[in-house]
Amino acid sequence: MDVVWWEEDAVGYVDQRALPGELVRRRAESVDDIVDAVTTLGVRGAPAIGVFGGYGVALAALRHQGGAFDDAVARIRAARPTAVNLAWAVDRVLAAEDGDYLAEAARVHDEQRTIDRLIGEAAVELFPSRGNVLTHCNTGPLATAGSGTALGTIIAAQQAGKHLHVFVDETRPLLQGARLTMFELQNAGVPATLIVDSAAAITLRTKNVSAVIVGADRIAANGDTANKIGTYGVAIAAQHHGIPFYVAAPRSTFDFTLRSGDEIPIEERAASEVRVNGDDNVYNPAFDITPGHLIAAFITEYGVLRPPYDEGIADLKTRPRLFVPEISGAASGAQIGGL
Amino acid sequence: MDVVWWEEDAVGYVDQRALPGELVRRRAESVDDIVDAVTTLGVRGAPAIGVFGGYGVALAALRHQGGAFDDAVARIRAARPTAVNLAWAVDRVLAAEDGDYLAEAARVHDEQRTIDRLIGEAAVELFPSRGNVLTHCNTGPLATAGSGTALGTIIAAQQAGKHLHVFVDETRPLLQGARLTMFELQNAGVPATLIVDSAAAITLRTKNVSAVIVGADRIAANGDTANKIGTYGVAIAAQHHGIPFYVAAPRSTFDFTLRSGDEIPIEERAASEVRVNGDDNVYNPAFDITPGHLIAAFITEYGVLRPPYDEGIADLKTRPRLFVPEISGAASGAQIGGL
Repeated sequence: MDVVWWEEDAVGYVDQRALPGELVRRRAESVDDIVDAVTTLGVRGAPAIGVFGGYGVALAALRHQGGAFDDAVARIRAARPTAVNLAWAVDRVLAAEDGDYLAEAARVHDEQRTIDRLIGEAAVELFPSRGNVLTHCNTGPLATAGSGTALGTIIAAQQAGKHLHVFVDETRPLLQGARLTMFELQNAGVPATLIVDSAAAITLRTKNVSAVIVGADRIAANGDTANKIGTYGVAIAAQHHGIPFYVAAPRSTFDFTLRSGDEIPIEERAASEVRVNGDDNVYNPAFDITPGHLIAAFITEYGVLRPPYDEGIADLKTRPRLFVPEISGAASGAQIGGL
Repeated sequence: MDVVWWEEDAVGYVDQRALPGELVRRRAESVDDIVDAVTTLGVRGAPAIGVFGGYGVALAALRHQGGAFDDAVARIRAARPTAVNLAWAVDRVLAAEDGDYLAEAARVHDEQRTIDRLIGEAAVELFPSRGNVLTHCNTGPLATAGSGTALGTIIAAQQAGKHLHVFVDETRPLLQGARLTMFELQNAGVPATLIVDSAAAITLRTKNVSAVIVGADRIAANGDTANKIGTYGVAIAAQHHGIPFYVAAPRSTFDFTLRSGDEIPIEERAASEVRVNGDDNVYNPAFDITPGHLIAAFITEYGVLRPPYDEGIADLKTRPRLFVPEISGAASGAQIGGL
């Protein structure tokens, strides 16, 4: 299932606001439509927003010229200021040497698909041929417009002939696991069982879980990883039960300028997402930091990265930021850092 | 605030179905009203149900005679078959030597208040004079018709002059923390902050939490403790951060016939409590088992019980099941087991 695509004179997308109740495909026919879809989470997930914004530039070029085009592009670029992928993709498409924005947007999309595919291939060896895994939040095709990161690796392993069953944390407060991950696993034909987040510990203890795998929002140079709230508790519980805890993320998620997770600010979101009584105090961090020492391996498009992470991530930094299929194809599945 | 009380010809109660939106006090004027309030969770929490059922026998004696009275009592006794306190309280009130059911029901209620008060007094030493604590689910006055167990100890410490601030897990799927614990802390004037369950780990790491305290549904002879789903994960996270994890529960919650938590069956509840999509698989255990080695101490009406638990719980077993104020008053605050 495509999540974002180009139509003759519009950008098509699956409207994630309607999921899982309905699978609604929409056409963004104007820059207003693009901005609206991004700001209201019709399209969500940093890589997916990037791909969508790239096509948005091509759409803006169809609709506007001169200063109006510049204004339109600026509005798309700023539709969600915290998602680094959006600004990056818009800038990259704008910089297309031949001015062919659509072709460049399609390249961004293709590269995302390739990165996701390589992450999936690198991860296959980590899963048993038959067994249970556990994941948190949503990191599938809906989030990347490719095949996904962590959830993509599970689907890829299944397609490679493994027989996995997935325990899915519902992921309060916004229920991305219950709404989106369960939907995507059903689409992919992978059996899944939904649990409340706080049932992860007893599930790890009693349900013979072979591995936990999650995505990441930002990874520091020492391997400390920011991800959706709840990830840290699952990582602690996985260590307590001797179950490997994996993080699947592309090179672009590593922030080489940060020495450790202490330098990652923790965003707090609106109390209204959580509270029942109108005036209750709420602490609602959007993510938490999982220290690198709780992570058994990172899975990237350049292969599986194992401790010591300082070294492996420094090595990853030397790889090209833009994915180059010729180089990475050869490196796929190889160990990095340890090499 | 009383949760359950006797009126001249009815049993009064705070209707927990309406909380936290409204504080509704109702009169159960018939045996049907009693049974309905229990089955639909108008009154909930095993000790509170017991007290309510005890008054229910007194009400049944006002309304019915002979076989009709026996039938009415049998219906009350079976209104929630899994709550051991209900059957116990009904039987005890029925066995009143002088046949004065109302007086015996009031004694059951008084003993519950005394037990809760002694638990609160025993726990005071465990809290800092100023600091943060974290709790899970609801174990306050609403749950016991006294002053509560775990939540009662926090309120008691505050009333004893300590300055505590409470982080409250919302407690999915039924949100007892968000709905009831936040309400009770506001009533008691204790500052509180609501979090999603999966934010407990980052809260323990970053918010300078001095202690975690929870209640219990059943405790085995080795200290393994069944409590609301999510308790186990919080206990693991507390150990990971070196924060003491306490369980507050009366002697009646200890099941001396069970050698370990492995013998406690894990009840699974309806998928509909959790799922978003109509046909999703759900694993919805109502509680989990926290091994005794993760528990820093139990707080009972006989005092604070520290490891080794095999020994301390065996000693607790020799104490009278029915609380006798003369004996227990003397033992209040004393160590048990270690004596």
